[in-house]
Amino acid sequence: MSKDRSEVLMEYLLTRGFVWPSFEIYRSMVEVGGFYDYGPLGVEVKRNIVEKWRRIFVYPYQDIIFEIETPIIMPEIVFQASGHLEHFTDYIVECMKCGRKYRADHLVEEELKKRGINIRTEGLSERDIEKLIIEHEIKCPQCGGELSKVYKFNLLFRTTIGPYSNNVGYIRPETAQGMFVTFPRIFDLAGRKLPFGVAQIGRVGRNEISPRQGLIRLREFSQMEIELFFDPKDPRCPFLDDVRDVKIRLTTEDEVKKAVKEGRDPTPMELTPREIVDRKIVPNEWMAFYMALAMTFMNELGIPVDHQYFLAKLPEERAHYAACAFDQMVLSERFGWIEVSGLAYRTDYDLSRHEKFSGRELRAERRLDRPVEIEVVRVYPNPQKIREVFRDKAREVMKLIAGLREEDARRLARGEKIRIGEYEITPELVFLKVERKKITKEKFVPHVVEPSFGIDRIVYVTLEHAFTLVDSDKILLRLPPDIAPIKVAVLPLVRREPLTSIGASIARELARRGLKVLYDDDGSIGSRYSRCDELGVPIAVTVDDRTVEDGTVTLRDRDTRIQIRAKISDIYSIVRSVIEEKRDLVNVGRELGLEVIERT
Amino acid sequence: MSKDRSEVLMEYLLTRGFVWPSFEIYRSMVEVGGFYDYGPLGVEVKRNIVEKWRRIFVYPYQDIIFEIETPIIMPEIVFQASGHLEHFTDYIVECMKCGRKYRADHLVEEELKKRGINIRTEGLSERDIEKLIIEHEIKCPQCGGELSKVYKFNLLFRTTIGPYSNNVGYIRPETAQGMFVTFPRIFDLAGRKLPFGVAQIGRVGRNEISPRQGLIRLREFSQMEIELFFDPKDPRCPFLDDVRDVKIRLTTEDEVKKAVKEGRDPTPMELTPREIVDRKIVPNEWMAFYMALAMTFMNELGIPVDHQYFLAKLPEERAHYAACAFDQMVLSERFGWIEVSGLAYRTDYDLSRHEKFSGRELRAERRLDRPVEIEVVRVYPNPQKIREVFRDKAREVMKLIAGLREEDARRLARGEKIRIGEYEITPELVFLKVERKKITKEKFVPHVVEPSFGIDRIVYVTLEHAFTLVDSDKILLRLPPDIAPIKVAVLPLVRREPLTSIGASIARELARRGLKVLYDDDGSIGSRYSRCDELGVPIAVTVDDRTVEDGTVTLRDRDTRIQIRAKISDIYSIVRSVIEEKRDLVNVGRELGLEVIERT
Repeated sequence: MSKDRSEVLMEYLLTRGFVWPSFEIYRSMVEVGGFYDYGPLGVEVKRNIVEKWRRIFVYPYQDIIFEIETPIIMPEIVFQASGHLEHFTDYIVECMKCGRKYRADHLVEEELKKRGINIRTEGLSERDIEKLIIEHEIKCPQCGGELSKVYKFNLLFRTTIGPYSNNVGYIRPETAQGMFVTFPRIFDLAGRKLPFGVAQIGRVGRNEISPRQGLIRLREFSQMEIELFFDPKDPRCPFLDDVRDVKIRLTTEDEVKKAVKEGRDPTPMELTPREIVDRKIVPNEWMAFYMALAMTFMNELGIPVDHQYFLAKLPEERAHYAACAFDQMVLSERFGWIEVSGLAYRTDYDLSRHEKFSGRELRAERRLDRPVEIEVVRVYPNPQKIREVFRDKAREVMKLIAGLREEDARRLARGEKIRIGEYEITPELVFLKVERKKITKEKFVPHVVEPSFGIDRIVYVTLEHAFTLVDSDKILLRLPPDIAPIKVAVLPLVRREPLTSIGASIARELARRGLKVLYDDDGSIGSRYSRCDELGVPIAVTVDDRTVEDGTVTLRDRDTRIQIRAKISDIYSIVRSVIEEKRDLVNVGRELGLEVIERT
Repeated sequence: MSKDRSEVLMEYLLTRGFVWPSFEIYRSMVEVGGFYDYGPLGVEVKRNIVEKWRRIFVYPYQDIIFEIETPIIMPEIVFQASGHLEHFTDYIVECMKCGRKYRADHLVEEELKKRGINIRTEGLSERDIEKLIIEHEIKCPQCGGELSKVYKFNLLFRTTIGPYSNNVGYIRPETAQGMFVTFPRIFDLAGRKLPFGVAQIGRVGRNEISPRQGLIRLREFSQMEIELFFDPKDPRCPFLDDVRDVKIRLTTEDEVKKAVKEGRDPTPMELTPREIVDRKIVPNEWMAFYMALAMTFMNELGIPVDHQYFLAKLPEERAHYAACAFDQMVLSERFGWIEVSGLAYRTDYDLSRHEKFSGRELRAERRLDRPVEIEVVRVYPNPQKIREVFRDKAREVMKLIAGLREEDARRLARGEKIRIGEYEITPELVFLKVERKKITKEKFVPHVVEPSFGIDRIVYVTLEHAFTLVDSDKILLRLPPDIAPIKVAVLPLVRREPLTSIGASIARELARRGLKVLYDDDGSIGSRYSRCDELGVPIAVTVDDRTVEDGTVTLRDRDTRIQIRAKISDIYSIVRSVIEEKRDLVNVGRELGLEVIERT
């Protein structure tokens, strides 16, 4: 996209009410980058994209995928367990003269780029980045002052829950943790059978150091995520065959490593889900399955296949919980290749950590090939001792001991002490009984594959791909009809009775049935069609003099400008065919035997 | 509701996956009351309620009501302006012995109730409550310790935006402020004409001192709000006639005062919107209009009219921004009368405050009856002086001065100094030019009426009203079909081929078309019908031997248990008529000339 076109797009998104920076009236007074509002058209596009995601990822698999909604604020212990308190950090560096703070890796990349040096900082340590700053004598770009040491800055938004200042909470940086901590509930709903998945759509917060790039890097944004739980000894996906024909473009870890070494961009190859599994590019079928759905999702939003690929993340680039990860990249003319979703094999990392921190068992069972005799340790609390040690917390500790995991019980039997949350439990506090028992099942912590989508970036790339300039300056927003914010326009040919009241009543009826409608009787019909094209309205209904005679109207297709003539009473079902069934307007018209008017 | 029934309901909501307390695995370790998860069925009910609200409050008025989405985290200055930093507080009291903290007014009410004394604490000052504590010798209910003085506790969740610790932000306590601060954008989209409204649906946070009561008092919850902007000199609502027949139950301020004096509950009366306006019970037509929509909304959720009324708030009970306010009360068998929505006349309070704090004009214009000559003060920044005083902030200050409001300009002309945000502007910093000018329009700050709904409470009362025990122990969830979480069940009469594969393929096809479907082939058909009734599934499709012969299935109505026999290919459109068009299943069947099977 040339700079001009990209500026036309940004101006368009602002003024037509798709998106704009939040708190504009206070922008000159406070630093509040990284927040965006959705205007009336943006809200609709976002909602339509979410609904499409649900129809691709959730509804067809509703026997095993359960959508839930959990809070945005979560207590500190969740993020101690999840590792975010320790690992969810960026590098920061401060100017010793003016006090300005910068994201250190970005600063180094940008400053070196100005000098013609291209460097990848992903995976570097704070010492590495510090070395680069010293070596290249990088200074504060604002005032030229010396820079401080590089240190880690945690990206969690911190707050306090309730009136006690030590009861710390955070805004979740991913919806995922809400799904992990509610594992026991959903596992019960799933009949305690694997595989099953949990889906969540919602807001998250990441306290970026200095976000720019509009919708691409936000401090508050929305995610759509699935945590798919499965038995690592049975990593099959029963739906893999349904997506066998989807072509997936991806770059493997090997290719990425090679490309880095050779100083070039990695080259994607095209494979089917089955080929990806067979070549062991991914460690389980679920990863390949979700790649196929994710590509389908992007296709249906209007992103061509050659504008997408999956990029393998190298070990040092992965999040702390991921044993294997791919970023789904989409080509933006403005921002280059950007990540719109991440696909991670989180193994049993999260559930195991929450087991450890909560003392609750988060496990499934699998049948053994043959029965096995094992030692079982039964643990009973010693109420007197516990009261002596824990006083008013004694009841709580007894409850925790009653629900102890086998692993912890065995450690107590070996004379070790264990920790549950803030409590240290020593063997002296319990009675132990060791029994031998024949078992036919064994317990294990399920493994997890996670597809995770950033909604706001997807909204942006969808709009960018739909945004077309016709005859160099007329805007045509070619959104898929089910994504278009306004579904239908109603236009009296001229502003004159009874055309206007017929038009208004058609508009009212369509709105009543849940459609977003634009009624417009202002200006020439040509300029109103242009207005509809600009807003991406897929169908424009025109009321003319013949409407008064025979109750028919014309329906105009946005992209071909071909019109069909239909009865007023059929408008709703025709619009629905186009939007819900993804039918072509003119084909629908032909099928119904309606008059078709080619473009004049 | 007897205690038994109410417990059956709570157990039901937890185990069927409607709602449950968040972070259960950590509940014994941290104090995290006031947070709830929505399970798979709860998510659907919530979404359906939101969609119904949109269809009643937004879609029919889409010419003038604009839905937007703004961030949950907002910078401090917004809540300085809105008054929440000062006023959004509860009274707190601390035990001097054990350190426990209590919401003071609730503690006093509860402790006195135990002694048979009923007291209303709403509107009392901290000194008043302190006096009650001393007078009645109220002690810490946990340890009997002495209580501290009563002080104010601010309910905003506080955080920090970005790496500078003085850049404070808060989680919004209402979605409203996001709509006020974005007024200029939406006013432009509305063609700078009044009346117009902004709608928002989203999460908010209120850091309650010690929330209990499940979904009724949450620290994080969801709201649906509209800010309707209008000219106070023209408080007419063009849609009032559309709702003329809605009967509104309400209690006036006078009645509430009288009832308080006489120590009884206020008695609601029944009026039409027009009568409410004519009797001056509300100060503008919009209040009456939104009362009518709100009652309609509750009716359509299954809340009978005599389980609702609007309660006038007395001056001392109103939020700091409201000149007139009503709470929409709904009768819950478990919790008594609870507020599900608030209707407030916020006047020009919020926009005026944001004008003052941002220095931006947030005004509309009205045409004058006749032209008027006025004095206009033009203000030009004095760059040199400004640079001397503000140094590196000079450009910012010059921008602010360029956009100065008339009121501030006049104050400078009178030799006064003014404040914009953190900057103090003195007359020495500007050049002033006074002109006389004839004007035909005058500017004013629009007034606001706000209907504000708490989604979680509405979900609760809707489920409670739908929850029915038949024959004393069989559960029937009589949700309106468009609110029901699962729309249709598909049940092979027996688990046998080809009935099961036909059933599965029907279920798959309905799911593909966006319906939430339950496929169930486990157990007797009777027990499966009961399961459907328990989950509130409005229509159960049964596949039997005749299906194999002639491609027809039975569709069973949940509430009457009457069945109709229809072709497989017609299931979708019949289900849609029942759900979207709110048609009765059996009537649809009769109209289509289908076989109707009365209950056996």
